[in-house]
Amino acid sequence: MRSVIMHAPGDVRVEERENPTITEPTDAIIRVTAACICGSDLWPYRGIEKPEWPQPMGHEYVGVVEQIGGDVKNVKVGDFVIGSFFASDNTCEICQSGYQSRCVHAVPMGSIGTQAEYVRVPLADGTLVATPTQPAPEQIPSLLAASDVLGTGWFAAVAAEAGPGKTVAVVGDGAVGLLAVLAAKHLGAQRIIAMSRHTDRQALARTFGATDIVTERGDAGVAKIKELTDGLGAHSVIEAVGTQESMMQAIRSARPGGHVGYVGVAHEVELPGMELFFSGVHLHGGPAPVRRFLPELIELIISGQINPGEVFDLTLPIEQAAEGYKAMDERRATKVLLTL
Amino acid sequence: MRSVIMHAPGDVRVEERENPTITEPTDAIIRVTAACICGSDLWPYRGIEKPEWPQPMGHEYVGVVEQIGGDVKNVKVGDFVIGSFFASDNTCEICQSGYQSRCVHAVPMGSIGTQAEYVRVPLADGTLVATPTQPAPEQIPSLLAASDVLGTGWFAAVAAEAGPGKTVAVVGDGAVGLLAVLAAKHLGAQRIIAMSRHTDRQALARTFGATDIVTERGDAGVAKIKELTDGLGAHSVIEAVGTQESMMQAIRSARPGGHVGYVGVAHEVELPGMELFFSGVHLHGGPAPVRRFLPELIELIISGQINPGEVFDLTLPIEQAAEGYKAMDERRATKVLLTL
Repeated sequence: MRSVIMHAPGDVRVEERENPTITEPTDAIIRVTAACICGSDLWPYRGIEKPEWPQPMGHEYVGVVEQIGGDVKNVKVGDFVIGSFFASDNTCEICQSGYQSRCVHAVPMGSIGTQAEYVRVPLADGTLVATPTQPAPEQIPSLLAASDVLGTGWFAAVAAEAGPGKTVAVVGDGAVGLLAVLAAKHLGAQRIIAMSRHTDRQALARTFGATDIVTERGDAGVAKIKELTDGLGAHSVIEAVGTQESMMQAIRSARPGGHVGYVGVAHEVELPGMELFFSGVHLHGGPAPVRRFLPELIELIISGQINPGEVFDLTLPIEQAAEGYKAMDERRATKVLLTL
Repeated sequence: MRSVIMHAPGDVRVEERENPTITEPTDAIIRVTAACICGSDLWPYRGIEKPEWPQPMGHEYVGVVEQIGGDVKNVKVGDFVIGSFFASDNTCEICQSGYQSRCVHAVPMGSIGTQAEYVRVPLADGTLVATPTQPAPEQIPSLLAASDVLGTGWFAAVAAEAGPGKTVAVVGDGAVGLLAVLAAKHLGAQRIIAMSRHTDRQALARTFGATDIVTERGDAGVAKIKELTDGLGAHSVIEAVGTQESMMQAIRSARPGGHVGYVGVAHEVELPGMELFFSGVHLHGGPAPVRRFLPELIELIISGQINPGEVFDLTLPIEQAAEGYKAMDERRATKVLLTL
């Protein structure tokens, strides 16, 4: 089968690999309908993360169940399914408390690589959620977004306690930040401030529900948020970048007692204890437990209440994956969908 | 009036100062009945914090209202009152959301110094809470505890979301940690693990509601907490020390999705972003908004439901304040009450 493999920073190839097979009775094999390139795939692409090369790529996926192991009961062959970037049993105490990405049996799908024709999904019963019927082709991008970027933005908005009466600031205008705007809107936030310097992303943020745009970054961005909130700071701040600057910008943009939901994978970040202490904020984040939100997100997409697929601004056949990585790296694309 | 002044690390004296006077119409002057020495007073005593010397000391107090400014309506001369270590207006948006220690007009009482015969309390209407009647002498230590250590331990337990069905671990066996045990018990926690190596403090922790004692610290302490919680970690962890080791011990002792409430003033702490990210914990803390809890705590004390005053294990007249500091510094005392 065709599969995207990264051989070194900047070196992405589409190669033949053997088709996956059922190895555990809880596995399912899915034929991937669409996959995508994640902002986090750029960390190794840029040489900031150093995995073992060569590395199969991708952890976002939608597809059709091709085969199931003997113990799989919740999905059947032919189902159209969405899963999160962590396989999870969805039954352990951690899953049941809503933290499926930290399931005691969690398997990172990135170690398997979903930018491929077929994928073995461990713990299929806990991981995969089927759509009620086969989705229309135009719904596929939105369902694919639910696999990670939407689910992650949603978690960030929930972690930041976005809701009615709240002013929400969003640090980061990548796909996750933009979909966090959509999530905050759906959760009823009164005012949503998107922090973005890119005209096209600002426009999408407004489409998704942003009421204000702040172009300043760092301390100037913080000052602008304070100016917009009577000097107090936002009730809720979403961090969707993962750098020292973005984390501090998020913490400093929140009012005392406010909530910071952070989902940017924190690279080389050190939070100064004394400043965090006196900020008085709530801090919550990490790898999003997307599985918690999938049933609701699928329902919202199928019923046409949200259209997160708008975040994809470049669609390429998997053969052109290298161009997709390049376009995202050079910020010519926000989010790339790969068709199979 | 007599007042405790620190002149340099280790140099605590009781000296005469001028009596305070009303400077704003929102001020009250109280005659202090009892004050105490805080764990945080040991930071300058040990030379770790370097304030401007000489420094008036103390921020915990109970007393009787001696005089009020023209705008004060909520307390009257003769009332027995308790206040927090931050004066707050209790009307601003931050106060109303429960974060009075970060009131937009907050005044740190430590800058005034409450280890003294008389204290000027700014924003008296927002800051002071009167007892319904004059308290019995044996209730005074407990009411004094409410001013900081109880209120702080209570906030830590609330921030850690201690409650029914929860396993709560408490890092730190000082007065705040011990009273966090009491708070967790009152909030209905099922299991309360006190981390302590001191026999007397272990005994008091058990009195306050601890069900388990863990004597190990650092990673060994974390391993023990995991062992006691099916390998998952505690639902709620309270951090009441304020060092790098104690913060990491707290974060690592919590399960994914668990809550860490931290109230130890974080000295030279740097939280590694990547570890925090993958921990998946909720982190909340800072200077406790004690004022939020005062009405409830006073009611619980006056009605005899809680007896936090047990945390005082040394009572001295203010003239012997230097000995009180020494006893706490040398860990001969957990918490020192100063009488006036």
